[in-house]
Amino acid sequence: QASLPKGYVLRPLQSGDYERGFLDVLKVLTEVGDHTKAQWLERFNYLKQHSHEYFTIVIVEEAKNKVVAAGSVIVERKFVHLNGLVGHIEDIAVDANQQGKKFGIKIIEALKYIGENTGCYKVILDCSEKNIPFYEKCGFSHKEYEMVWRP
Amino acid sequence: QASLPKGYVLRPLQSGDYERGFLDVLKVLTEVGDHTKAQWLERFNYLKQHSHEYFTIVIVEEAKNKVVAAGSVIVERKFVHLNGLVGHIEDIAVDANQQGKKFGIKIIEALKYIGENTGCYKVILDCSEKNIPFYEKCGFSHKEYEMVWRP
Ligand SMILES: CC(=O)N[C@@H]1[C@@H](O)[C@H](O)[C@@H](COP(=O)(O)O)O[C@@H]1O
Ligand SMILES: CC(=O)N[C@@H]1[C@@H](O)[C@H](O)[C@@H](COP(=O)(O)O)O[C@@H]1O
Repeated sequence: QASLPKGYVLRPLQSGDYERGFLDVLKVLTEVGDHTKAQWLERFNYLKQHSHEYFTIVIVEEAKNKVVAAGSVIVERKFVHLNGLVGHIEDIAVDANQQGKKFGIKIIEALKYIGENTGCYKVILDCSEKNIPFYEKCGFSHKEYEMVWRP
Repeated sequence: QASLPKGYVLRPLQSGDYERGFLDVLKVLTEVGDHTKAQWLERFNYLKQHSHEYFTIVIVEEAKNKVVAAGSVIVERKFVHLNGLVGHIEDIAVDANQQGKKFGIKIIEALKYIGENTGCYKVILDCSEKNIPFYEKCGFSHKEYEMVWRP
């Protein structure tokens, strides 16, 4: 696995990433909302207390002290497959000004590594039709259909 | 919402459902494995300790003291949608000898109710192409594509 360009690091989410624009990066994905620091900390602390199941990683541009890419894997505990574990990859986002640097692939490779090393028998995600080729390049293949219901 | 046929109850998973054939019902879905009682209790107790995020329900045939249908919803905590919650429906299974009694729909309706009442902004699941019409009848619509990677 090739390394990141110079000046960038990949690491777990930190509390100070609120000030480093983590939530802005997520805006390429969907509606994020306007978190106060207290709302940020509420969710950050929940995830930290559940660090056996929630893993969020970021890529940071060190000179600018800015988050440029992010992603999560959530480890589900099942009965099937003899108490099998399933990794759910969620909320993959790369800053629109940082495309072409393969940050998306780096994030996915790191999350696959986490999934494998926590013992997941599979790692899954849902993506739009246009992103299927990207995830195929990352080693995934199309299996089922995501269905949604909104209350 | 119509009630269940007489003699059947819908309720949360109980520890004694090991003896009531809960794991056998899951066999319609995939490989389940041969759980010892200790392995069953390990997973059951984990889910119980995480009862704010794991909800598993069953339908039981009272006269026979047998589980005939089952399903789960796992509530994921996100940053997007202002600390939004997403319900993941998993491991929907109905005993092959109990088809046509609408147990699948009852399980899904109950899991949607749980998702809505825990505050999920959406409830999602992955299904095979042939099951899309069933989930459409349950109020779901097709959104994205499930991608899988196996270590
Ligand atoms: C692999 C990946 O990043 N998938 C994301 C998912 O994690 C995210 O939560 C959702 C937001 O869409 P929503 O606002 O409609 O829930 O979009 C995509 O499905
Ligand atoms: C809605 C529903 O019940 N979906 C199930 C999923 O929950 C289950 O975990 C998987 C097992 O397949 P696997 O053995 O290939 O993981 O099948 C289906 O996708």
